[in-house]
Amino acid sequence: MSMKILNPKNIYHSPRYYSGVKAGNTIYTAGRVPLDLEGNVVAPNDARAQTEYIMEDLKLILAEGGATFQDVVYVHTYCLYGEDMPVIHEVRQRYMGDHYPPHTGTRVDNPFWVERGIRLEIEVIAVVED
Amino acid sequence: MSMKILNPKNIYHSPRYYSGVKAGNTIYTAGRVPLDLEGNVVAPNDARAQTEYIMEDLKLILAEGGATFQDVVYVHTYCLYGEDMPVIHEVRQRYMGDHYPPHTGTRVDNPFWVERGIRLEIEVIAVVED
Amino acid sequence: MSMKILNPKNIYHSPRYYSGVKAGNTIYTAGRVPLDLEGNVVAPNDARAQTEYIMEDLKLILAEGGATFQDVVYVHTYCLYGEDMPVIHEVRQRYMGDHYPPHTGTRVDNPFWVERGIRLEIEVIAVVED
Repeated sequence: MSMKILNPKNIYHSPRYYSGVKAGNTIYTAGRVPLDLEGNVVAPNDARAQTEYIMEDLKLILAEGGATFQDVVYVHTYCLYGEDMPVIHEVRQRYMGDHYPPHTGTRVDNPFWVERGIRLEIEVIAVVED
Repeated sequence: MSMKILNPKNIYHSPRYYSGVKAGNTIYTAGRVPLDLEGNVVAPNDARAQTEYIMEDLKLILAEGGATFQDVVYVHTYCLYGEDMPVIHEVRQRYMGDHYPPHTGTRVDNPFWVERGIRLEIEVIAVVED
Repeated sequence: MSMKILNPKNIYHSPRYYSGVKAGNTIYTAGRVPLDLEGNVVAPNDARAQTEYIMEDLKLILAEGGATFQDVVYVHTYCLYGEDMPVIHEVRQRYMGDHYPPHTGTRVDNPFWVERGIRLEIEVIAVVED
């Protein structure tokens, strides 16, 4: 399938995978952790600030595919501590407005995250009009 | 994308996200844990009863989108104990009949689940005819 | 939805679910662990060999749906040890060529995997031309 690569400028992209692709009218993003342009962890251990950073990145990735958060059909959040979920929900919803896409939250143990102060990862699927 | 919200009556819905959406001909559900209408855990620590409860809920969510279990293209089960997978498979298959959609099972550690007696979570993707 | 079952010959298939399906132009695979035709673990605890084995299997599943790795829009890798991710990325990329689909990596604790020497699981979504 010919697909559009969604690697917008001015955000971090892994050398190992695209941050997102658009195939047909569906957008898939990679799981997004809070890394700045140089790949450094943003606001270590601050779930609120990290969620904001991730949402800003996702907004740009979606925009590159002609989508907004209103087009998101699925959100998956991975987090170290379930205690962070209320603030993650709160921040995400500020970006989602009155749109409440289906969400799955998964608790993970990840020693690398603990070491670097990464608290969460978010990935989304979005569908735009044909 | 204009999408249909799949929040059928008489089952629990999170205030934070829709239980499912239908965008085009694809249905995405949120990860579903065994909660009754008031949000209480159903049959704590009984993986069989909880799987049945979740499957009944998913049936209604799919129906709201014009789908049945025969339309499911992917199932993801998250569980606390791998020992529960045989009974989860058995119960799920009773609902799936002779349809065996691709499945991924992920073991998770979740202290909140342990505390509340939640043993598993299931999410599905389904595709209906145009 | 009428869908095509993707259970190619000469690779292991679970009795509990199809290895993949194609619905419309989208292919969903089950999470794939390194099992040989008889269901025995391949190359216990060798992440490199297991990744190769899984990628070979996925290649056949995709081919059954008329797809190649160039059509993959999303990859999810589950692994026991984050230390294995570099070699998993390296091997996967050998199969992907210059295509770098969005990827999410999730660390899991799974006593059954530890016991059997399974180090990882990979699932993909692919989209082919209509």
